[in-house]
Amino acid sequence: MSRNDLAVVLASGGMDSCVTIAIAAQAHELALVHFNYGQRTERRELQAFEAIADHFHVARRLVISIEHLAAIGGSSLTDTSMKVASANLKSKEIPTSYVPFRNANMLSAAVSWAEVIAASSIFVGAVEEDSSGYPDCRREFYDAFEKAIDAGTKPSTSIRIITPLIHQTKMEIVQRGLALGAPLHLTWSCYQNDDVACGVCDSCALRLRGFQMAGVEDPIPYVQRPMIFAKKEPRRKF
Amino acid sequence: MSRNDLAVVLASGGMDSCVTIAIAAQAHELALVHFNYGQRTERRELQAFEAIADHFHVARRLVISIEHLAAIGGSSLTDTSMKVASANLKSKEIPTSYVPFRNANMLSAAVSWAEVIAASSIFVGAVEEDSSGYPDCRREFYDAFEKAIDAGTKPSTSIRIITPLIHQTKMEIVQRGLALGAPLHLTWSCYQNDDVACGVCDSCALRLRGFQMAGVEDPIPYVQRPMIFAKKEPRRKF
Repeated sequence: MSRNDLAVVLASGGMDSCVTIAIAAQAHELALVHFNYGQRTERRELQAFEAIADHFHVARRLVISIEHLAAIGGSSLTDTSMKVASANLKSKEIPTSYVPFRNANMLSAAVSWAEVIAASSIFVGAVEEDSSGYPDCRREFYDAFEKAIDAGTKPSTSIRIITPLIHQTKMEIVQRGLALGAPLHLTWSCYQNDDVACGVCDSCALRLRGFQMAGVEDPIPYVQRPMIFAKKEPRRKF
Repeated sequence: MSRNDLAVVLASGGMDSCVTIAIAAQAHELALVHFNYGQRTERRELQAFEAIADHFHVARRLVISIEHLAAIGGSSLTDTSMKVASANLKSKEIPTSYVPFRNANMLSAAVSWAEVIAASSIFVGAVEEDSSGYPDCRREFYDAFEKAIDAGTKPSTSIRIITPLIHQTKMEIVQRGLALGAPLHLTWSCYQNDDVACGVCDSCALRLRGFQMAGVEDPIPYVQRPMIFAKKEPRRKF
């Protein structure tokens, strides 16, 4: 794989996509695509996207609005009348922040771009185990989507979907990011706030647990940092 | 299949989707989605969409902008600096009007909507033989995409993609539309103009040939109606 192979990376501005960019940058020329899907924290995420793109000196950037996902509704991420639930990392339920088939909407647009600019791969920072059970974050989905790309693009087009973090834990992602010098301080993960991260939504809780297990302090500020793995001590009576 | 099963129909405002709506209406309650992808004839297509939706008394309508396809470029349909080629119905080349992976962008959004409103099927008026060789108009693509839907939506979600016209010719589509009383006079197919159909672009040529072979006059006006199957006569000298 030559250094000049062009890769499109889906870049939300979050930690996983930041580490994914750092991985892709080792072997590819980069094109970064960011999606505004009407999520409540979009302003802050876009700011993170631009800062990360600057850090990696990527000129080829595309910001795509798929705000129809907000009009369609069905998710607490885009429907401001729904409450963003506090994290329950043990639940097997698909959380209310699930945006129906969101990643397919993003991937389809990324494929359109990749076909036009002749990129040979699309990198996605999806994480299967740690992704709150969203169905479109599993490798099984990306394998199926790759077959749809092969069937639905020109015969001369060949685009692979690369998911380097798919089987990693948030702890391993933090460690990988630190090892690669990825600018984690520039990333934004909170689903709830766009000034100071809340610390209690699914996304904050997963991120904080990752840093905690890696034994490193998360460099961004939080409203609160719950002790997710607090030691069990007998509750003191007052 | 009960009459009240909800179906999403992709409705461009063209003839194929109009006949598809007429077919879906026989067995389903309808939800119609129209896409603005920055195509030069969007204003006229939207007008046709609304008129057709009125005709079928469908209240549940959604208009979705996927104009990022215009920003991405690569097609004469969305890039006004490219010329819309006159039809060459014998060519095996993918024409310049091909919008990369367009139908996947539309389908992904339709699936998001279908999952939220609990529709069990998505009807698409794609036509394989007669569709100028667009790779994402082939049933092979829809089969692959269906598997991506199964993999990428909630376990409780089951959405089929129905393509009732996929193996039909334009002649058969005209005949089917007439048999079902579909309002073909309200449809718009031209890729070039938004006032009077040009008669010479791929889409006009295919449509006119379909009517001609069905032995019926197309009810909409044209700038010119080339005699696509003109009899071979010795050219007269003047």
